[in-house]
Amino acid sequence: MKNKAITSRDLDFAKWYTDIVKEAKLVSYSAIKGFVILEENGYAIWEMMQAKMDAMFKETGHRNVYLPLLIPEKLLNKEKELVAGFSPEVAWVTIGGQKELEDRLCIRPTSETLFGEYYSEIIRSYRDLPKLYNQWCNVVRWEKETRPFLRTREFLWQEGHTVHETSQEAEEETMKILKIYQRFFEEYLAIPVVVGRKTEKEKFAGAEYTLTVEALMYNGVALQSATSHYFGDKFARAYDIKFSNRNNELEYAYQTSWGATTRMIGGLIMVHSDDNGLVLPPKIAPTQIVIIPIQDSEKVLEVAESIKNKLTKNTVEIDLSEKSAGFKFAEAEVKGIPLRIEIGERDLAKNEISIVRRDTRERINLSLDDDLQEVVANLLDTMQKDLYDKAKAREESLTFEAKNLDEMKAIMDKQAGFIKAMWCGSPECEEKVKEIKGLKARCLPFEKEAISDTCVACGEKAKEYVIWAIQY
Amino acid sequence: MKNKAITSRDLDFAKWYTDIVKEAKLVSYSAIKGFVILEENGYAIWEMMQAKMDAMFKETGHRNVYLPLLIPEKLLNKEKELVAGFSPEVAWVTIGGQKELEDRLCIRPTSETLFGEYYSEIIRSYRDLPKLYNQWCNVVRWEKETRPFLRTREFLWQEGHTVHETSQEAEEETMKILKIYQRFFEEYLAIPVVVGRKTEKEKFAGAEYTLTVEALMYNGVALQSATSHYFGDKFARAYDIKFSNRNNELEYAYQTSWGATTRMIGGLIMVHSDDNGLVLPPKIAPTQIVIIPIQDSEKVLEVAESIKNKLTKNTVEIDLSEKSAGFKFAEAEVKGIPLRIEIGERDLAKNEISIVRRDTRERINLSLDDDLQEVVANLLDTMQKDLYDKAKAREESLTFEAKNLDEMKAIMDKQAGFIKAMWCGSPECEEKVKEIKGLKARCLPFEKEAISDTCVACGEKAKEYVIWAIQY
Repeated sequence: MKNKAITSRDLDFAKWYTDIVKEAKLVSYSAIKGFVILEENGYAIWEMMQAKMDAMFKETGHRNVYLPLLIPEKLLNKEKELVAGFSPEVAWVTIGGQKELEDRLCIRPTSETLFGEYYSEIIRSYRDLPKLYNQWCNVVRWEKETRPFLRTREFLWQEGHTVHETSQEAEEETMKILKIYQRFFEEYLAIPVVVGRKTEKEKFAGAEYTLTVEALMYNGVALQSATSHYFGDKFARAYDIKFSNRNNELEYAYQTSWGATTRMIGGLIMVHSDDNGLVLPPKIAPTQIVIIPIQDSEKVLEVAESIKNKLTKNTVEIDLSEKSAGFKFAEAEVKGIPLRIEIGERDLAKNEISIVRRDTRERINLSLDDDLQEVVANLLDTMQKDLYDKAKAREESLTFEAKNLDEMKAIMDKQAGFIKAMWCGSPECEEKVKEIKGLKARCLPFEKEAISDTCVACGEKAKEYVIWAIQY
Repeated sequence: MKNKAITSRDLDFAKWYTDIVKEAKLVSYSAIKGFVILEENGYAIWEMMQAKMDAMFKETGHRNVYLPLLIPEKLLNKEKELVAGFSPEVAWVTIGGQKELEDRLCIRPTSETLFGEYYSEIIRSYRDLPKLYNQWCNVVRWEKETRPFLRTREFLWQEGHTVHETSQEAEEETMKILKIYQRFFEEYLAIPVVVGRKTEKEKFAGAEYTLTVEALMYNGVALQSATSHYFGDKFARAYDIKFSNRNNELEYAYQTSWGATTRMIGGLIMVHSDDNGLVLPPKIAPTQIVIIPIQDSEKVLEVAESIKNKLTKNTVEIDLSEKSAGFKFAEAEVKGIPLRIEIGERDLAKNEISIVRRDTRERINLSLDDDLQEVVANLLDTMQKDLYDKAKAREESLTFEAKNLDEMKAIMDKQAGFIKAMWCGSPECEEKVKEIKGLKARCLPFEKEAISDTCVACGEKAKEYVIWAIQY
């Protein structure tokens, strides 16, 4: 039976997406455009993401700090490329404590400037390096078009900002973080990604280069999912971050920054979910198993309780709410809970219970004498793997090759996806490709291929292998 | 040996406090008055507080959500008492995306208004209740006087907002949360508290009543440390939060809100720390044990590593930085790490190591054959208990009784502290008491005493037993 509140994914993908967000109670709209409420179910996914990523950051020596929400205009203006990139979309505080402020303050759209100022205060010697700080916080960017998770005026994220003695160490850091992001996407979110370097046009304002994790959604549209930037000593020059090096000479330091946001939740939805609601990979699901007693008899509730107590390695809930069993099944589905255990008197009479997998909706009948812990562990592992494999197969089926613009256009007329094509490296050709439905270079992948010898746009000698796609 | 960078606590308490904050690297100032940077060591304490409190909230059925940073002016104005309480100290966003906004937006000073609007959307029936939500976020209040942790224009906190079917259930929630705060202070922060109800004058703007956790600092000044408010159906009426009850009648819902902030870190400092720096209770210390190798010989480092691996139940760091052992000792002290394990060649020759307690600075020599896990566990338990007992004894020694204003004045001329005194309940008498160095009613404690039969100010018949103090 299909969930009637959810538009079919193949019928209207955009509507399907907002239906999922609403029906799974992930997000609710607020009175201000682009500012949303992360509801209980949505925020719980963010908490899972935070816990896993934070542990990975800490294992690699990073520590959390918290810098101010507001940035003085003068400070923002210190790094010209950064300010050019962000000033069109910032929000300004002009009144505080009933008084007009002398210098207006912008709500942080990102915190390179604040970290720059802080680092210039605390770094004196190579002994103070590296500094490996991260912060979890909210940022504001006054976007025109907004959509829950994918683009909101306020969003939650982590932003890492590190300082190093040498360019080599900073570049290694940029790559180390990219690998952490990649591992997080593949291992926890079960989302296959393409990793590589952004083109000059698509890199972060002010960075030397930007590394990126790119994922493909169900509809063939790409989502830039996390980025890691190498700054060289550019920001250090703007913010005067100098240290005395091992030869006792003053030198500018080398920096990186990197971030991942609540938009990853949008990616989770658009890769795995279906017409019955959210589908969550077990490793990121806030609740992995829901036990639904079909009757509220003593015997049924007793078995439910004993099963919950057995599954100590999992997050398990018993749904004891005043609703019909059918309603509870649908609710567990729409929320994307990986496994649903149904306990009913008829099954119990046969010494049985049944488990339903969210992704395949497959039902497994079990004897109460079976080793439930093992069955559940295997099912969750299999489901995690299957979700990744399914997404990977889809990504592959939506990845195309093009040797010229006509081929690119023909592909895009039929179906959006990743398009592998060669590029001469000129911004003009990048612009020409963009004329095809807004195709952009997602990245220059680390894993190189050779589709042809010539640029997809101008036919001149190709320099770079690029993956192109339209994006959220 | 005393830490020379830290002013003596008994000489200049305010200077001592800011020295600790700076030397322990808890906070650094930013370019904007009242906006501080929570540095690595400061933020790590906040993360410990978050983890412990969040677990206590979740165990009692609360869930986290995230509501917007900005509040439309119209929405803020809906509840008159609340707006009167907060509007003098809010910051206004008037420009977004390079355009003047039609309706200015205030940065949340607290989120009752946003939760009110959200709850009015999602609550329809008694089956939707209770709603037990909390959020961890930043808020902004444009304070005139600021001081790290104690009063800053931006601070981090948790704010719980709950909705209930009956006034009784909401009142029980208000009390349940107060007990959680009390337990957190006593068990984790090792800070004794007085718990009770605020007077009408001191309660939260718009609340029916406010319950509070009050702690006394080393210098006899009180710190309002966490509060829990009962709203009755007042906010529900302002924000139209109605539900159909069990008799199928529409009814206004009953609400609570409650919060605790980074100011608790200020309390930790002012209760336990000393002239050598921070002293952290083991249960809240981000690092419980630091191992300091006195030489960097292979043997010493090997023992350090093996000891770290033994202490799996604790958070342990080995200080391998390029500094002298003496410098490392002082640094461990100033950071408040509960135990320091020193490993040196001379001791190892005797098969020994030594452990130093941060609070008492007592040195314990141990054989490598001793059961280190047990010794450490006992030391940490003892230290946690001793810190509480010491703080409790100090609180008692700084708690006085007064029967009239002359006695109050005499006490305050000598030494600030908690003053127990009776009160007739009139705001006029509350004002009169305030004339004595700004003494305010901290609370009407749940544990009643009878100091006398008459009001400390007017001499009329007393109604309430009150604890008074000056406050941060």
